[in-house]
Amino acid sequence: MKNVSLAIIPGDGVGREVMPGAVDVLDTIADIHGGLSFQNTWYPYSCDYYLKHGRMMAEDGLDQLGQHDHIFLGAVGNPKLVPDHTSLWGLLIAIRREFQQVINVRPAKKLSGIDSPLRQNEDFDFVVVRENSEGEYSEVGGRIHQGDDEVAIQNAIFTRKTTERVMKYAFSLAENRRKYVMSATKSNGIVHSMPFWDEVFNDVGDGYPSIDQASSHIDALAASLVSKPHELDVVVASNLFGDILTDIGAAIMGSIGVAPAANLNVNGKYPSMFEPVHGSAPDIEGKGIANPIGQIWTGKMLLDHIGEHELSTFLLSTIEEVLADGFKTQDIGGNSSTGEVISEIVRRLKIN
Amino acid sequence: MKNVSLAIIPGDGVGREVMPGAVDVLDTIADIHGGLSFQNTWYPYSCDYYLKHGRMMAEDGLDQLGQHDHIFLGAVGNPKLVPDHTSLWGLLIAIRREFQQVINVRPAKKLSGIDSPLRQNEDFDFVVVRENSEGEYSEVGGRIHQGDDEVAIQNAIFTRKTTERVMKYAFSLAENRRKYVMSATKSNGIVHSMPFWDEVFNDVGDGYPSIDQASSHIDALAASLVSKPHELDVVVASNLFGDILTDIGAAIMGSIGVAPAANLNVNGKYPSMFEPVHGSAPDIEGKGIANPIGQIWTGKMLLDHIGEHELSTFLLSTIEEVLADGFKTQDIGGNSSTGEVISEIVRRLKIN
Ligand SMILES: CC(C)[C@H](C(=O)O)[C@@H](O)C(=O)O
Ligand SMILES: CC(C)[C@H](C(=O)O)[C@@H](O)C(=O)O
Repeated sequence: MKNVSLAIIPGDGVGREVMPGAVDVLDTIADIHGGLSFQNTWYPYSCDYYLKHGRMMAEDGLDQLGQHDHIFLGAVGNPKLVPDHTSLWGLLIAIRREFQQVINVRPAKKLSGIDSPLRQNEDFDFVVVRENSEGEYSEVGGRIHQGDDEVAIQNAIFTRKTTERVMKYAFSLAENRRKYVMSATKSNGIVHSMPFWDEVFNDVGDGYPSIDQASSHIDALAASLVSKPHELDVVVASNLFGDILTDIGAAIMGSIGVAPAANLNVNGKYPSMFEPVHGSAPDIEGKGIANPIGQIWTGKMLLDHIGEHELSTFLLSTIEEVLADGFKTQDIGGNSSTGEVISEIVRRLKIN
Repeated sequence: MKNVSLAIIPGDGVGREVMPGAVDVLDTIADIHGGLSFQNTWYPYSCDYYLKHGRMMAEDGLDQLGQHDHIFLGAVGNPKLVPDHTSLWGLLIAIRREFQQVINVRPAKKLSGIDSPLRQNEDFDFVVVRENSEGEYSEVGGRIHQGDDEVAIQNAIFTRKTTERVMKYAFSLAENRRKYVMSATKSNGIVHSMPFWDEVFNDVGDGYPSIDQASSHIDALAASLVSKPHELDVVVASNLFGDILTDIGAAIMGSIGVAPAANLNVNGKYPSMFEPVHGSAPDIEGKGIANPIGQIWTGKMLLDHIGEHELSTFLLSTIEEVLADGFKTQDIGGNSSTGEVISEIVRRLKIN
């Protein structure tokens, strides 16, 4: 029996609506497998938790989470209750850093059953490998002077160790895909960190002679997600650039509600975290219209991560089948509820 | 007689192909006006110039340019001849900074005659007001240690003076438009410069109570350019974010080749520079397929800037008429040459 211990954090907003169903889906998959089981421990860490306890997670929260194999997270943040800075750095970003989840993997793929907002409607299938622990997201910086003379300074910090890891992950991934890596840069305008990024990309790339390699400035690359996304295979990007590209990736898939993600710890010391691209969208919470596909597809990434590729493929094809048959929430042009989409996926997993 | 002295810099690549026609268009407009004339001085500053002289412009290049009312620029850069860093910081970025062109204005509008790559094909019409002289584009930073321990640090620097100017420009612009300003932020991840940006946005915004105001994180905002661009009116953004958003804006217009821009000096001390969003695209130079619309529309922005709103409106409607009648380069689905599109615009300006 393969036992996988999961920390389940529904978090805020729609995270709480889509998580129970996504956990059902994983448990259904485990039943089908027979030799797999998930031990689910639910954690209430969220903005509500903050309102009660003055912190986003228990004092030993990271220790508790660290005892699980992996973390399955919904969404974090509700600016009406807690400032984003506090909620995100106190939970989401804290987990990414503490557990050295230096890589954020985010696929973008045209799903059958969802019309892309792009007129050409061509199939695309690429993966953004995003640096997830440093770069432009940094607490280093500050301000000087006041009034008219005030100056704010923000440091972006790129280490060779982490940058190399991200590049290596991207190249290895491309080896099992269409063998093409595109690096997002902006070395023509940002003249210290981005030339460094380019250098590491080229250095690591030299070790992968069978992989096609190219760089594009982030402005042009963002535009190409609209004009020719089918040309991309693996995209490697800094924390900020990856953040931007994956939201555009979600948009061309048809909705932020479908996009999956995995925050990977690659040194094997800590849990990885599986968390969809979408946020908590507190404005639509409780209406039954949240799209559960992002969370469920994120569960598929967890299956891949634990080596269950066959079941993972089965899950994605079931998702596409259900969408193609019209079980869709309204953000992707349907009129099914969150619950109806989930039940239909679970039902088909059982009968297929 | 209104005499306007222009420094014309075709620059590199397709800049050299589209510039003569765009200058013809401006001269034609001046003839129609009767009381307007352009004194054009052509400058060869470019990568070719660099190969001959070891610099992107003459030693007193900035002084020479500074004597004109305005600068009309094609495109800069040809990485096969000169590294981008050298060509851009030696010409384009040098001009933006020396002449305190702190604001880059970039409209994005669905033109009749061009199908948007977005399926919904709804009309959109927004303007990105981009900070153009500081922020993420900075020469401040460096590296420490070597090998595995190497760390690169990049500073982004935001001054209150410049940030305020940009915000004020955005709000004033919105007063004459649909009265809605959206600010691009990322204060949830970038915790020094972006909260500062938000603060200045809110401070300046307090002075414009009749303008609707909102902030969106750059990831979500970039995605919304794909999903609901029609909702935007004025977008205010930092140097990097504005760069990214305007390339996406160009993509949803149908081609980077049509997008116009103005680098504005707003303290009246120095020339402004009119330069399209597209780059030099040396790979397609000389084939007669470069789209001249971006450069010509940029000329329209120059007309607006010198107060010739009637002729500027006439020029844009002529552009749209010509496109709607099928005079289009191949990037936007036509088969006309660069020259054919230009001639047709000039011809119609004369007879209309
Ligand atoms: C060439 C490059 C430095 C420039 C920029 O990023 O400012 C260009 O992309 C632009 O938008 O004008
Ligand atoms: C909420 C925010 C800090 C986060 C990020 O920018 O990393 C989110 O946008 C994401 O992409 O996971």
